[in-house]
Amino acid sequence: MKTVRDPVPLQERVDDDLDELSKIVDDSQPGWTRTALSEQDTAGRHWALRRMRDAGLEAHIDAVGNVIGRWAGRDPAAGAIITGSHTDTVPGGGRFDGNVGLVGALEAVRALREADRRLDHDLVVIDFFGEEPNDFGLSCVGSRAITGDLTGEHLALTDDTGTRYADALAAAGIDPAGLDKARWDPSRVRAFLELHIEQGPVMEQQGTQIGLVSTITGTARFRALFHGRRDHSGTMPMHLRQDAGCAAAGTVLAVERIAGEQEHGRGTIGSVTFTPDAVNVVTERAEIFGELRSPERDWLQYARTALLEAAGTEAATRGVTLDFEWLPGKAPAAMSPTLLDICADVVGGLGYRHSRMYSGAEHDAAVMAAFCPTAMLFVPSHAGRSHCPEEWTDSADVLAGVHALTETITRVDTTPAC
Amino acid sequence: MKTVRDPVPLQERVDDDLDELSKIVDDSQPGWTRTALSEQDTAGRHWALRRMRDAGLEAHIDAVGNVIGRWAGRDPAAGAIITGSHTDTVPGGGRFDGNVGLVGALEAVRALREADRRLDHDLVVIDFFGEEPNDFGLSCVGSRAITGDLTGEHLALTDDTGTRYADALAAAGIDPAGLDKARWDPSRVRAFLELHIEQGPVMEQQGTQIGLVSTITGTARFRALFHGRRDHSGTMPMHLRQDAGCAAAGTVLAVERIAGEQEHGRGTIGSVTFTPDAVNVVTERAEIFGELRSPERDWLQYARTALLEAAGTEAATRGVTLDFEWLPGKAPAAMSPTLLDICADVVGGLGYRHSRMYSGAEHDAAVMAAFCPTAMLFVPSHAGRSHCPEEWTDSADVLAGVHALTETITRVDTTPAC
Repeated sequence: MKTVRDPVPLQERVDDDLDELSKIVDDSQPGWTRTALSEQDTAGRHWALRRMRDAGLEAHIDAVGNVIGRWAGRDPAAGAIITGSHTDTVPGGGRFDGNVGLVGALEAVRALREADRRLDHDLVVIDFFGEEPNDFGLSCVGSRAITGDLTGEHLALTDDTGTRYADALAAAGIDPAGLDKARWDPSRVRAFLELHIEQGPVMEQQGTQIGLVSTITGTARFRALFHGRRDHSGTMPMHLRQDAGCAAAGTVLAVERIAGEQEHGRGTIGSVTFTPDAVNVVTERAEIFGELRSPERDWLQYARTALLEAAGTEAATRGVTLDFEWLPGKAPAAMSPTLLDICADVVGGLGYRHSRMYSGAEHDAAVMAAFCPTAMLFVPSHAGRSHCPEEWTDSADVLAGVHALTETITRVDTTPAC
Repeated sequence: MKTVRDPVPLQERVDDDLDELSKIVDDSQPGWTRTALSEQDTAGRHWALRRMRDAGLEAHIDAVGNVIGRWAGRDPAAGAIITGSHTDTVPGGGRFDGNVGLVGALEAVRALREADRRLDHDLVVIDFFGEEPNDFGLSCVGSRAITGDLTGEHLALTDDTGTRYADALAAAGIDPAGLDKARWDPSRVRAFLELHIEQGPVMEQQGTQIGLVSTITGTARFRALFHGRRDHSGTMPMHLRQDAGCAAAGTVLAVERIAGEQEHGRGTIGSVTFTPDAVNVVTERAEIFGELRSPERDWLQYARTALLEAAGTEAATRGVTLDFEWLPGKAPAAMSPTLLDICADVVGGLGYRHSRMYSGAEHDAAVMAAFCPTAMLFVPSHAGRSHCPEEWTDSADVLAGVHALTETITRVDTTPAC
């Protein structure tokens, strides 16, 4: 008869997996770049497939590109406990981001199997397809497909070149007509647990080892197009101008001001285009893309109204017209309070310094939360840097997260449904 | 014995010349595009060469591309009276701009010759090469060459692709080593007179037919590079950001505010680039190109200081670094007071409504003013629009300008040196 031990994640295996993933990148870009639909993304997901099989999972890639590995539990009627994250990155992104959650899930499986801790529930590891925002304005593609939130409207989205998202998927060998096959039945799922780096500076500042996410930020994305009048920069008096560029600049500052009113508020205009973009011509057309974020639904609604009013004023005072459009966004997503309590109990029992916190970043967990009981565990990021080459999480911090994830999985397995 | 009549410009010939020039354009661009060094520019200058010869001038293209036609006067010792403007345009520019001054000069010669009004002075018509700002940050190339203000420093300027201006000229068949040959001796020049559209709304608002330019604006051009920190737009709290885009936006508004303090002030930031230019990333790098203009030297100096201070504050309050650079600019250029009085007397005598005014646009006349007594005559622009397809001046207004130019030439010819 076998001895049932505690599952102990191994730091070396976790480090090696992160190292291997860090080599499957687009070398022509800075940092670690593996954007969805790129050849490196395909290679990364096939690496994940092999590692799942190495860990003893029954693994396949589904109709939308999600890599899914399953370790069957003792009770066929019990729903699956899902864990995982994503291996795609933003261009010029970092070395950890979603990788930590996928590698952590693999290691949790290995540690549980080595300890002969087979679960009652199936344990499913997922490398979600296309979590990062793509050129079509869409993020969390894989989790949307699994939860039934990937619609024809999403597939009809176009990028700058006019290409439809459905066609971009087809070009990468993913048949958009088969997306329904990727959909899961929620009654077959017990819980979703995602390990991730914080991507912000809060945990490091507080000295926290494990962050317990209470709510994932809501995001309101927008596009504003200011249309003024092209004029000669020397001859047109200031008070007679219709300078679209100044109206856009005023809106950039308004977003900074509105978001700064609350600790939990975020506001960013990261993309600006002036036309004709000439030093001696008053700007005729200025286009901005930006977003507001907050875990607080009411504040987000207030900020949307305040932004719209500010942009309207910036335009109107200059005789500029405004074409404002809200893009696909996300409402704040609360994690399961019961799961959160379980996580807090497990992590406290392991002796890790922990605290409850918001997530300012979007995650597949926000999509999954509408589908099944969901929780997220954070590990700290150096100086809060993320989506950049400087993104870093110490190996010991990653291992603490994997340990917490592994023990949480075993606790959820033996706790009545929440 | 011939009868000496008054020279009378003919509307039909002026209209026909403007029509012909309006057909020598780059059809792939909006409006009327004939940028310096393009094939259309070469074709336009050869058209000017033929029209000068048709008008009886001894004409050639000089070492830098200026098209120069001469009608010898009776007194070989008297300096030349020069008139003309330029036929190059900005991309997507208008149908009138420099064309009116070149076509007006051609018509003045024809009218004077038909009236047998040979001058004592040589009458020289010039189609100046490359008046509009080019990709190398340089304008008024032809007049700079004639006045000796085209230096090796200018030839070493590079465009975005790293091409040197000297090489771009050579590629268009202009030998940079021969530029010295284009230089004139100021003692051989009596005066320069330039007819041009106003490019602003002042004359139309005042009901003025002929504008008498007292001073041509000075221009201070600059490039400001803000360097902040690339961060995740959801996770980095507002008060910990170093958002280069917000610092740039604040500077755009500062320029608008500073220039708006004085009626004669102009301030424009027409070019902005955010990097990485992504909706969910805090901007790491923001580059702006802009300018301040005024005919008032002291105010321009004040505005430069105020801008530098404002940009520094916008950067410092956000922990962003600022790399600020002044680009080649121009000091305000006063026209000859004596010539201005002559113009006022002639135009008043012809019965045209006229007034003295600033020029907010740069002109070859600003370069020539440092070289010889110089005056400019303006005709009105519809709604002040210029450097755009909507640029328009009525045929009757153009003809009034040509008439005033022709009579001013004959008056200067018979007035003692100023």
